[in-house]
Amino acid sequence: MTLVAFLQAQNCSNYPASWRHPQTMPDFMSPQYYQRIARTLEEGKFDLAFFDDRLAMPDRYGDDYEESVRHGIRVVKMDLVSIMTAMGLATQHLGIGGTYSTTYFEPFHVARVFATLDLMIGGRAAWNVVTSLNDSEAVNFSQTEHLEHDLRYDRADEFMEVVLGHWNTWDKDAILLDREKGIFADPKKVHRLDHKGKFFRSRGPFTVPRSPQGHPVIIQAGQSGRGKTFASRWGELIFVIFANLALGKKMYADFKQQVAAGGRDPGKVKLTPAVYVIPGETKTMAEEKAALIDNLAHPMDSLALLSEVLNFDFASKPMDEPFTDAELKSIGGLQAMRDRVIQISGKANPTTRDFVQYSGRGTIREVPTFIGTPQAIADQMEEWFNGGACDGFVIAATHMPGAYEDFVRLVVPELQRRGLFRKEYPGKTLRDTLGLSVPEKSAVG
Amino acid sequence: MTLVAFLQAQNCSNYPASWRHPQTMPDFMSPQYYQRIARTLEEGKFDLAFFDDRLAMPDRYGDDYEESVRHGIRVVKMDLVSIMTAMGLATQHLGIGGTYSTTYFEPFHVARVFATLDLMIGGRAAWNVVTSLNDSEAVNFSQTEHLEHDLRYDRADEFMEVVLGHWNTWDKDAILLDREKGIFADPKKVHRLDHKGKFFRSRGPFTVPRSPQGHPVIIQAGQSGRGKTFASRWGELIFVIFANLALGKKMYADFKQQVAAGGRDPGKVKLTPAVYVIPGETKTMAEEKAALIDNLAHPMDSLALLSEVLNFDFASKPMDEPFTDAELKSIGGLQAMRDRVIQISGKANPTTRDFVQYSGRGTIREVPTFIGTPQAIADQMEEWFNGGACDGFVIAATHMPGAYEDFVRLVVPELQRRGLFRKEYPGKTLRDTLGLSVPEKSAVG
Repeated sequence: MTLVAFLQAQNCSNYPASWRHPQTMPDFMSPQYYQRIARTLEEGKFDLAFFDDRLAMPDRYGDDYEESVRHGIRVVKMDLVSIMTAMGLATQHLGIGGTYSTTYFEPFHVARVFATLDLMIGGRAAWNVVTSLNDSEAVNFSQTEHLEHDLRYDRADEFMEVVLGHWNTWDKDAILLDREKGIFADPKKVHRLDHKGKFFRSRGPFTVPRSPQGHPVIIQAGQSGRGKTFASRWGELIFVIFANLALGKKMYADFKQQVAAGGRDPGKVKLTPAVYVIPGETKTMAEEKAALIDNLAHPMDSLALLSEVLNFDFASKPMDEPFTDAELKSIGGLQAMRDRVIQISGKANPTTRDFVQYSGRGTIREVPTFIGTPQAIADQMEEWFNGGACDGFVIAATHMPGAYEDFVRLVVPELQRRGLFRKEYPGKTLRDTLGLSVPEKSAVG
Repeated sequence: MTLVAFLQAQNCSNYPASWRHPQTMPDFMSPQYYQRIARTLEEGKFDLAFFDDRLAMPDRYGDDYEESVRHGIRVVKMDLVSIMTAMGLATQHLGIGGTYSTTYFEPFHVARVFATLDLMIGGRAAWNVVTSLNDSEAVNFSQTEHLEHDLRYDRADEFMEVVLGHWNTWDKDAILLDREKGIFADPKKVHRLDHKGKFFRSRGPFTVPRSPQGHPVIIQAGQSGRGKTFASRWGELIFVIFANLALGKKMYADFKQQVAAGGRDPGKVKLTPAVYVIPGETKTMAEEKAALIDNLAHPMDSLALLSEVLNFDFASKPMDEPFTDAELKSIGGLQAMRDRVIQISGKANPTTRDFVQYSGRGTIREVPTFIGTPQAIADQMEEWFNGGACDGFVIAATHMPGAYEDFVRLVVPELQRRGLFRKEYPGKTLRDTLGLSVPEKSAVG
């Protein structure tokens, strides 16, 4: 079973109300905050900690940032590279993944950033490939509005060709370091990429040699139609949201089939749905914890984050007025979330209230929440895992760092006892841990 | 006296032949390599370690990268952020500066990267602002040729307005973290920048609060006419190359006057010329060391690096044919170097051989080299410092990490004995160390 921690370089966990939790540590602008979590995850033999990101604070709702700032709705968003490095240097086995957008950067830059990070943390880096999805990000980056949904995936496809291409331009034995003869590297083993495409041109040679794991692991999270095609083509670890077990089984089978149809080994593509886990020494204690956490939420959290992720100003629609077909079609943000609300609500034209309720956005009901004793939680995880709904889980945090401390101390030992999860790391690199092979040649090499 | 170490995240020091030095450590792709240097510099109470950068390997000479790869002429160039973080986490006082280009990134990104780094290393970050100068970089970043010299400085000016603007959008007391009332931050103390310019638009709000030193220190190195205007407007620490003491005195006085004329306090802008320092326990030992180092150079080092920095293919000109006026004018790379060669050679139309000789490019004669006993070296440094040619020095390394170990163990104690250099750090942040004030409002705030 693959276990991934879902982190954010911000003032709260994925759960925006988490900063109000009495046990949340306030030092989120220090390396200690992230290193503490990294050490806990490594004690729990997690495969990977990975960070999402967004290049703006949530201010689509009523074009208003003041409510987000007041309520602390993901308003601090720091760049991930220095934070990932701090975590990597505090650990020896834990994989460290981070999001960088394909929409507002050049692929040469992103290739260099992640290749260097991978060297600095000994072959344990992963890159979560995203397309940026809302207008708040666009207006920070000299654009007036975000790229249309499918077009930004076209750009992302070409972005991947360039990044993987550059990562493959230094053969693994290129460096000779022969001081006597004065030969640093074999020029026949370093190549120009000479990419000329629709969105990018990038010649090379790239300036970062190969890392111990070949190149960083590719994480992807696309769940829209176009997004799934992208993920099945490039992803090695797929982050998903399955509303429940039944839907999970179906989507898991569909996705693995899509990977195989594309000519890749579905066993080498890990599918990991997000869950919140609230364990307690007793069932009552777990339920008390969950109630306390749930009560921290503020209605604005949901509206601000729905507007952000769907790139639609929910302040413009009365709570109980159904969205028209045209409005639904105009939603250019995370279309998978729009589609999930339509599916789960059973309404072709949901209202704002339906979006709040059925997306669970901003609450702990956004993803399945496992609450109970370690045994009860392990039962649920086992049911999903053995039931063909996943290859492991992305554990989101209800508060930081307590959620991971609870999970590592209460649930991980139970998973280990059942033989569902490792007791030791198998090797040194993230690819060793995930059981992924070292890429000999990249897809476009 | 300000002391700065001049570092590169590459396979050699600034001296390209350094990788062939018997004492050079080969682990330049590990964090240990950089952390070892950082600790040595901190033992020597250096103000700052700073990295240059370039977004391509040197391949302008004959459009050929093979010679550069074979001879190891700065062909490995890693991204700086993870490396700077590793150094910052291994130290407590040393400032850590790095180069990021204004030519191929968006200012929102660069602002976020450096603001985050500054938080992660406790207010000790600096940003060296450059414009990218050659076609090899352009073709890695989807361009066909680099931006024309003055135009890229226009872009850089606006870039600074956006970066400093964003850094000023969180008041220092904006964050409240009041869990009881549920107020994370005071919305009246977080601002949108709403920048709309010729090159960039960036709205904000920025997503990284202020650091302990306000914002990162600004390093600049412009020495061309347009470059000096830029540096005198924005720079807090200026990296320069003075060919000799007489020229240094003149250029130091001129630049300080230019800073004052622009309405800034010249005392708050530090001017630090680059030097190589080769100390020995005896004069003979120092000279032996220098001869060994000098003999490591290869003629291709000079030609490859001249072509790179001037963005001119020196393979296209016979060694002894004078450059025409038109050719000289066409040089769009580092114009300050072109002008220095014309000045020092006394030839209005130098040849390739003149460029090699008078630039010293790729050799230890590129910048003044102080060779001798610690006392003799301290004499020279004192003469420059007290003679009004500088506020300190940028110490370039002939080999790594030995050059800094020698300097810290032999020369620093002599400087301290003379009262020219600190024995303890005065505070916690880089601004404390440099004696720069915390910016209350940025230039455009």
